[in-house]
Amino acid sequence: MKQNKYDEPEFFAEYSRMPRSIHGLGAGMEWETFQALLPDLREKRVLDLGCGFGWHCRYVHEHGATKVVGIDLSEKMLARARATTDAPEIEYRRCAIEDIEVSANEFDIVISSLALHYIEAFDLVCRKIHDGLTPQGLLLFSVEHPIFTALPAQDWYYGLNGERLHWPLDNYQTEGRRQTNWLTDNVIKYHRTVATYVNTLIETGFRITRLEEPKPAPEIVDADVQDQSRRPPFLVVAGIRG
Amino acid sequence: MKQNKYDEPEFFAEYSRMPRSIHGLGAGMEWETFQALLPDLREKRVLDLGCGFGWHCRYVHEHGATKVVGIDLSEKMLARARATTDAPEIEYRRCAIEDIEVSANEFDIVISSLALHYIEAFDLVCRKIHDGLTPQGLLLFSVEHPIFTALPAQDWYYGLNGERLHWPLDNYQTEGRRQTNWLTDNVIKYHRTVATYVNTLIETGFRITRLEEPKPAPEIVDADVQDQSRRPPFLVVAGIRG
Repeated sequence: MKQNKYDEPEFFAEYSRMPRSIHGLGAGMEWETFQALLPDLREKRVLDLGCGFGWHCRYVHEHGATKVVGIDLSEKMLARARATTDAPEIEYRRCAIEDIEVSANEFDIVISSLALHYIEAFDLVCRKIHDGLTPQGLLLFSVEHPIFTALPAQDWYYGLNGERLHWPLDNYQTEGRRQTNWLTDNVIKYHRTVATYVNTLIETGFRITRLEEPKPAPEIVDADVQDQSRRPPFLVVAGIRG
Repeated sequence: MKQNKYDEPEFFAEYSRMPRSIHGLGAGMEWETFQALLPDLREKRVLDLGCGFGWHCRYVHEHGATKVVGIDLSEKMLARARATTDAPEIEYRRCAIEDIEVSANEFDIVISSLALHYIEAFDLVCRKIHDGLTPQGLLLFSVEHPIFTALPAQDWYYGLNGERLHWPLDNYQTEGRRQTNWLTDNVIKYHRTVATYVNTLIETGFRITRLEEPKPAPEIVDADVQDQSRRPPFLVVAGIRG
């Protein structure tokens, strides 16, 4: 049974209060990296796995995509996504990512923003994406970094005065389910190693074109933000269907 | 000025006492992974960057390579390497890895075992390797994992009773020189992120074919060895010259 945390009122309320939920793409530290890896979007058909509030769907539509499909398991997220656009080129479907049905060559680009770490069957999803992409089509996704998902606490190790001593890493090679405390209790994520992310894509038939571990822009003076460079919170991977 | 730690008597003595120095390739936790990524070696021309005692050079020669060049900065390492073979197909050269001179298409395979984290100019070395490899030639290397090189202490975080609480990670995005305490004081290594290793190869013209983070075999009961699965000590990357 797939967890649908985003439809739980408490989690939804917490998520809705995040800067990226209020201010959109630019409030995500990984967005600049992600954006730079997007190709020319004009006339493109784009699938967004885990579209949430639809920020990415609207972005690719505004930049020329002529067919945009956003899927998400959460009805609450989709309701807001639908409320923020009336573009007929954007279609939102309620669907778990693992359950997507795509036709051969249906899309030129598949994107996914911070959603695939909720997915147990990453290899299955990669195969489905591969089959739905046109040859030379792009898969571009971000996930929580394996350094970030290894321990369920997903938190710093603190000193006696509450200072962030370092990021604790453990159980890195033990892949699988993590019951984390992210925004609320009991948020199920799936930890995979960097090697698994990369090799699964290669085995499925993708050529890796970029791997990124985004870090905060150096001009940001906020210490909390700069702490994100002490360990990478996100992994961004781009691959081309061979 | 490149550090030549392996020619310092104290470091050389410590390194010579390591299981991999005494027992050879099989004593290295990453060897099984590395070995599995080697292609058929018959009739191949192989360059080994940082060949040390020559274990890898002898292995590829024994498996059919017809030209083997091992380079290393340390005269002490090379002296022992030379003493352990009289195969005319193996040539050892004293040279810093950054200073290698290779001809176009001179090699079919370039390997490097736990040496490139001593190298500052990884991009330069990748370009030289690329130019010296035949098209479709293989580059296969292992390095200390960026999780392992981020902090100079290269050690666990211990509890009050000396137990290994977790692996501390910090300064991940700050690439560059690390004055570590590995076997002896003042061993200079260069920290790079996983992204930098991967993207430098791609930018140089390699197609990534495998990325591995070797872990101990599950049947090994030694707790110290199994702790290596709590965080990856090594990164192994294979790329094909496009």
